[in-house]
Order: sequence, then C-alpha cells, then structure tokens
Amino acid sequence: MQNLQKILNYHFKDQELLLTALTHKSCKNQVNNERLEFLGDAVLDLLIGEFLYKKFPQKQEGDLSKMRASLVNEQSFMNFAKAIKLDECILISANEEANDGRKKASILSSAFEAIIGAIYLESGLNVTKKITYKLLEELYPKIDIQSLFMDYKTALQEVTQAKFGVTPDYILLEEIGPDHKKQFKMALHIQNQEYAQAIGTSKKDAQQKCAKIAYTKLMR
Amino acid sequence: MQNLQKILNYHFKDQELLLTALTHKSCKNQVNNERLEFLGDAVLDLLIGEFLYKKFPQKQEGDLSKMRASLVNEQSFMNFAKAIKLDECILISANEEANDGRKKASILSSAFEAIIGAIYLESGLNVTKKITYKLLEELYPKIDIQSLFMDYKTALQEVTQAKFGVTPDYILLEEIGPDHKKQFKMALHIQNQEYAQAIGTSKKDAQQKCAKIAYTKLMR
Repeated sequence: MQNLQKILNYHFKDQELLLTALTHKSCKNQVNNERLEFLGDAVLDLLIGEFLYKKFPQKQEGDLSKMRASLVNEQSFMNFAKAIKLDECILISANEEANDGRKKASILSSAFEAIIGAIYLESGLNVTKKITYKLLEELYPKIDIQSLFMDYKTALQEVTQAKFGVTPDYILLEEIGPDHKKQFKMALHIQNQEYAQAIGTSKKDAQQKCAKIAYTKLMR
Repeated sequence: MQNLQKILNYHFKDQELLLTALTHKSCKNQVNNERLEFLGDAVLDLLIGEFLYKKFPQKQEGDLSKMRASLVNEQSFMNFAKAIKLDECILISANEEANDGRKKASILSSAFEAIIGAIYLESGLNVTKKITYKLLEELYPKIDIQSLFMDYKTALQEVTQAKFGVTPDYILLEEIGPDHKKQFKMALHIQNQEYAQAIGTSKKDAQQKCAKIAYTKLMR
C-alpha cells in the first residue's frame, strides 16, 4: 500500500478508505470496494470526458462519446490499474487468488475505479483530476483521433485476410421492434462459420458489435 | 435569459456560453449545445451519484445504480428543465417550434444538461453541485427508496387490474446469444393483445422493460 501511494504521489488521509478501495467483494468482508467503484466510475467518466472536450474543441458530441468509450472501459481501466501496480495490492479471496483473479480485467478495473472514487471523496475533483490526467498521459502519450476510433470492421478484415485469406460476411438475421425504433440482429460468418451475433440500433452498429466479438475471439 | 439566471441564482460570466447552451442543433447555427450536453451529462451523473452515495451509506452499488437511473434520464431532466423555465428560453428552429419542440423531453433535457455543463466549465464542480442539489431537493423533496425504485411490473399490474380487471401476461419469445451471455426477448399481453416487446439480460429484466413500455402507453 505504501508503494501504491508513492506511485500515485498521493497519501490517503484515511487509510481505512484506501483499504476499502482495495477490497474485492470476494473477500466477504463487511465492506468492499463496490460503492467506491460506483462513485469512481462517474468521476472518470467526467474527467476523461472533460479532457476530450478540451483537447478536441472542433469535435462533435458523437465523436467525443466514441472517443470516451474507447478510454472508459474495463480493458482500459485494467491498464490504468496495472500502471499503478494495483494487481500487487488488491485484496481478493483465496478462491479468486487460485482462479487468477489478480489478473482479471473486471477485478482490476473495479479496483482502479474505487481508488479514484476514494481520492475524489477525500480530496475533491481537482486533486483527482491531476492524478488521473498524469496517468492518462503516461498510458496514452498520443491520444489522437485515429487511435481512439477503433473501427473493428476494418481491424477484423485485416486479421481475417491475413489468417484465412478472406473477408467476413455479415448476415442480417432479424429486424426487431417497431419502425421508429427498430433494432437489427446480425451474424458474422468467416468461411461459412458463425463467429458472432449481435443486436444494434442500425445494421452498421450491429456489424461493428459482431466485428468486435469476432476480433476479440481471433486475437485471444 | 435574465430570468433563467435569476431562477438559477447564477450569473454567467460568459453570456456567449449561455447562448450556446440554449441553442438546439435544429438552429443550424455554427455552434449548438451538443458538446456542452456531453459534458453536463457526465457532471450530473457524478453529482447525483455522489448525492445518493452519501444519502444512503448502507446501500450497495446495484441499488445506487438503480436509484440514479430513476433520477438521471430524459424524463427527469425535462422536469429539471421546466423547473428553471428552460422551455421559455431555448433556441429552436421554426420547424421545431411548429412541431411543439419546446415541449419535447429530448430537447429540454439536452438543454438542461448543457446549462449544467456550461456552469461546470466556467465555475467548477462545487458551484455546479450547489445549484444541482438545490434543484434536486426542490423537485424531489423526499428522495426515498420507495419512490426511486419504480417497479413497473407491480405498477402495471395495478393499472391493468383497475382498467381491465386482469393482470398482464409475459411471454418468452426467444433466447438470443450464447449461454454465458444470453439475452431474452419477451412480449407483454393484456387480454390477448400485445402491448410491448423487449430484450433483457434476464427474463425479469425483459419483463420490467416490457412493463415500462406498456405502463407508459396506458398512462398516456
């Protein structure tokens, strides 16, 4: 815990609070980090949103949302967690320990959110902002449009061409709901084998979701 | 605009910013309130989350999330917008005007988020917090567990019994996706007539969504 505070360059006034932030629910202690995670999640959403708002004054809301989504997610927060070596100091149950819980994205990302929630709670937004932005700049030294717009369809196409010499097929399975808020269920096939199904608010949206699932499967 | 600032008890340092916050995208001006809405949305998520976090120290994360969802939504933000008389000062196109745009939940709630985003931008979180909490306490004088947990299934049942003398039927239409993240598509029938369809992460979730749709239809 000393090391964590050194890396963050932040000393917790309330060491109990820090302990709570590090405690995964698997511990069955009286308190765990779920409530702090709830708070920290919203703090990070705001701070990263504000960062992008100021960095990209010409970008419209839709683009800002997409960029934020690529920074505010379990995978990204796991990277933040590892950067501050949270994997070395989270408290998890023996079962989770045996189950490689210390490496799980969900556990690490929750702990990171909880740490941010705890700092916000005792020191306010500006202190939390400094710490978050420092980490953000270390982890994403060049936040630019390209790297923040992960286009899974394009990415997947490159992978399948390299791997199988073909491009994926997207098949519309079903249109769901009334005309004014229709949803589209699509499947993704590679060489006639189904790799993903997803529902989206447009065909393009459902295709992106399918592509993301298949991309993740192939890159595992 | 003077009246709005009086109601908020807040004078905008930057009157251009205020104008931007009031400008709906239908105006086709160079700037509109979409970017400020993006920011304000995250500010409100945090402030209302923090409010609940502190007010309900015994509540778990899941309950806090549900409570927040019942306060942070288009309908609720429309009420905030009306409370500060935003309907009287938003700028919308002639088309939207003819289309009753001044009364639309989406337009009013966006404008409210943008106003909050603008205040945050020029005066920081603490000033925004005071204004938001004052409004919150005026609009929801007794924020309690009951009123924040709208159980649509129960509410709908009361309505259908009073109106038709029967309870609704929930019908499972389809299970979608792989076992580890299955989704459930359900329909809601009242007296053999379909009132709603919805997809949820559990049958219960899909039923609640169906109930909400049907409830809203019947209460219109």
